[in-house]
Amino acid sequence: MMISAEIVSTGTELLLGQSINTNARYLSERLAALGICCYFQTTVGDNPDRIRQVLENAMSRADLIITTGGLGPTMDDLTKEVVAELCGRSLQLHEPTLHHIESFFQRRDRIMPDNNKRQALIPEGSIIIPNHLGTAPGVILEEGTKTFVLLPGPPSEMEPMFEETVKPYLTMKTEIDPGLLHSRVLKVVGPGESVVEEKLRDLLLQQSNPTIALLAKQRGLHIRLTARAKTKVDAEALIKVTEAKIVKRLHPYIYGFDQETLSGVVGQCLLQRGKKLALAESCTGGLIAHEITNEAGSSAYFLLGVTAYDNSAKKELLGVEEKILQTYGAVSAETALAMAQGVQKISGASIAMAVTGIAGPDGGTAEKPVGLVYGALVDGAYCETKEFRFVGDRKAIKERTATAVLNWLRYHLQESS
Amino acid sequence: MMISAEIVSTGTELLLGQSINTNARYLSERLAALGICCYFQTTVGDNPDRIRQVLENAMSRADLIITTGGLGPTMDDLTKEVVAELCGRSLQLHEPTLHHIESFFQRRDRIMPDNNKRQALIPEGSIIIPNHLGTAPGVILEEGTKTFVLLPGPPSEMEPMFEETVKPYLTMKTEIDPGLLHSRVLKVVGPGESVVEEKLRDLLLQQSNPTIALLAKQRGLHIRLTARAKTKVDAEALIKVTEAKIVKRLHPYIYGFDQETLSGVVGQCLLQRGKKLALAESCTGGLIAHEITNEAGSSAYFLLGVTAYDNSAKKELLGVEEKILQTYGAVSAETALAMAQGVQKISGASIAMAVTGIAGPDGGTAEKPVGLVYGALVDGAYCETKEFRFVGDRKAIKERTATAVLNWLRYHLQESS
Repeated sequence: MMISAEIVSTGTELLLGQSINTNARYLSERLAALGICCYFQTTVGDNPDRIRQVLENAMSRADLIITTGGLGPTMDDLTKEVVAELCGRSLQLHEPTLHHIESFFQRRDRIMPDNNKRQALIPEGSIIIPNHLGTAPGVILEEGTKTFVLLPGPPSEMEPMFEETVKPYLTMKTEIDPGLLHSRVLKVVGPGESVVEEKLRDLLLQQSNPTIALLAKQRGLHIRLTARAKTKVDAEALIKVTEAKIVKRLHPYIYGFDQETLSGVVGQCLLQRGKKLALAESCTGGLIAHEITNEAGSSAYFLLGVTAYDNSAKKELLGVEEKILQTYGAVSAETALAMAQGVQKISGASIAMAVTGIAGPDGGTAEKPVGLVYGALVDGAYCETKEFRFVGDRKAIKERTATAVLNWLRYHLQESS
Repeated sequence: MMISAEIVSTGTELLLGQSINTNARYLSERLAALGICCYFQTTVGDNPDRIRQVLENAMSRADLIITTGGLGPTMDDLTKEVVAELCGRSLQLHEPTLHHIESFFQRRDRIMPDNNKRQALIPEGSIIIPNHLGTAPGVILEEGTKTFVLLPGPPSEMEPMFEETVKPYLTMKTEIDPGLLHSRVLKVVGPGESVVEEKLRDLLLQQSNPTIALLAKQRGLHIRLTARAKTKVDAEALIKVTEAKIVKRLHPYIYGFDQETLSGVVGQCLLQRGKKLALAESCTGGLIAHEITNEAGSSAYFLLGVTAYDNSAKKELLGVEEKILQTYGAVSAETALAMAQGVQKISGASIAMAVTGIAGPDGGTAEKPVGLVYGALVDGAYCETKEFRFVGDRKAIKERTATAVLNWLRYHLQESS
């Protein structure tokens, strides 16, 4: 049986922007994995009338209502009270829970404050969700065709309670086969969202099973294929057909799948081909080296990175000739190439890449505007340079340059060697 | 006049738990600072019926409805269409916006895909919010006593659009005295949240006006003081008293205030003292140089960064003697110092810093575990080394090292020179 869910987060601190709602994200992800559709997430403050209003609204449009927060000992923790009232249940003292709370304080050599007793009050006829890491128990309450699941706010308590009690309860109740829903993510760098959509328009229009979702990311785009099937094998088979069509159209822009990262794929390519990398960076200021070295084991293929921010460093360290800087300028294809050759020489690396550009906000001219970047790739005797024009603030230009350079290297390794 | 707001976030990826809703937090924080009460946050997928349902609901209980997302070029970007329909407005092509979008693509030497034209369709009679970093303009639409503000999903576009256009619009419309609520953020690196809480316990217990909030951040901790007063001057006076007490107790852990960043403060210190910096990085792999160069104008004080990932680079480029590597190992105070002296020499920088350590997950031993990092600071003839032991995964160790090194440099410049 398919059911729909709404997640209700309570807490005035969320409405003041003092803390970020990670619970809604966590629960949504888990529900999707169980094949339960979450159509709404709502956040409301610690106010009984507004909490009631939100819960009534949720009951009118969802079968399953999961709340987080408002189970604490203080006066403004009201979720249990409002739900009990909404379902016409009384709150009853649950002795084992009271004992659990008392021993929780004893174990810490502390006396239980009186107001913690409130946490042992449970709506009659509800299932109790044990909380091994805190004092507030959770509650599962069935009212007609509707099910309330009340969980505490702290993720460290809420998450294990969901895994240990709520998940098996939902699986049982909804007879969900955990293999029911399976996803695969294709990762794209290069074309924008609208270009990808044009290339895939007919597939997007025909989509049913698997569904196809385009997710614009800070770096590039994710294409998520989600299939429904009896078994994981069946779901994977469904995905494979659509995936093959997409790969055919978007190759060579697809750099990886699922958990793969661009720097990780580049690292694997270098490793497989036994190549060693060196970098000479100007406008990216070390970001490319940072990304390469985010990968465990990168010391096996990354030798040296030079952030030659000052021209003297470009000349004395990388051996870029004065006349190249004079004739073409520090931001030029010629300087980029000289920087790459220079770092290849001093590091003894087989492959070297260099970037020089104007990250802004200052330093741009009509002829060489902010966002103009030149890159060079040297592989043995093979040389290649590229001109890029990026838009955005300083950080965005650094990040777009790093992404373009890493993707360029990936393409070079995969296609040209 | 006081008004109430509801924030509506659209995007199926939010309901699938694939991305986290940072926009709701950002907007709530900004609205609170303007004295606008946000009573509800709602998240809904890219489904026209459900978006309509949520917006109708929001109109029934809020004066101001701010939406994020759904302004993109693709078929499932629907916010403008639904709001226009809800307010009985037609969508009209806005030529200047179309021109902006076309030139956005031209600057990238790309042809504008046809579906981007949709982004130039604006509900009649609405105010356009310029988007300097993307193609989707925002929209302000007044319908009777209700005001809709439609913003794009990417924070990098949404946030400046709010600051530049929406904030002044709201201040004007609601006649908010910007001094009504005034905040000041003290930024701390070093002690953990619980230590800071200990040091400030009595202040936290007595807090009323200003309120004191501790916000744990990826790097360090923020202490936000928020005062209510008739005028900004009065609020600042209230804050100053509490701020002075906190600074007295936490100095020298406070590196900056409000919008200041650690790398920015370091940059200012270098600039003021006319010092030039060079870096030799091993385990951080370029991250420290990346952070230094995130600051506009850093080329005025940053000369050179060397990521000497390979021992041969440490020896040949930085001149670390073989016998130092042999005797003490690559991860040692001696090697860190030699690296710092080496990069100081080749760059001609007055100040040089170096780090070498084990970022993991592999490479650790009982004697030199993962997370062991040695740093060195050289200022002219002055030399100093430090040992750090960090916990966390590879990225966390890199980030904690970078933070510790930058904070060390800040302290050295502010206290010792």
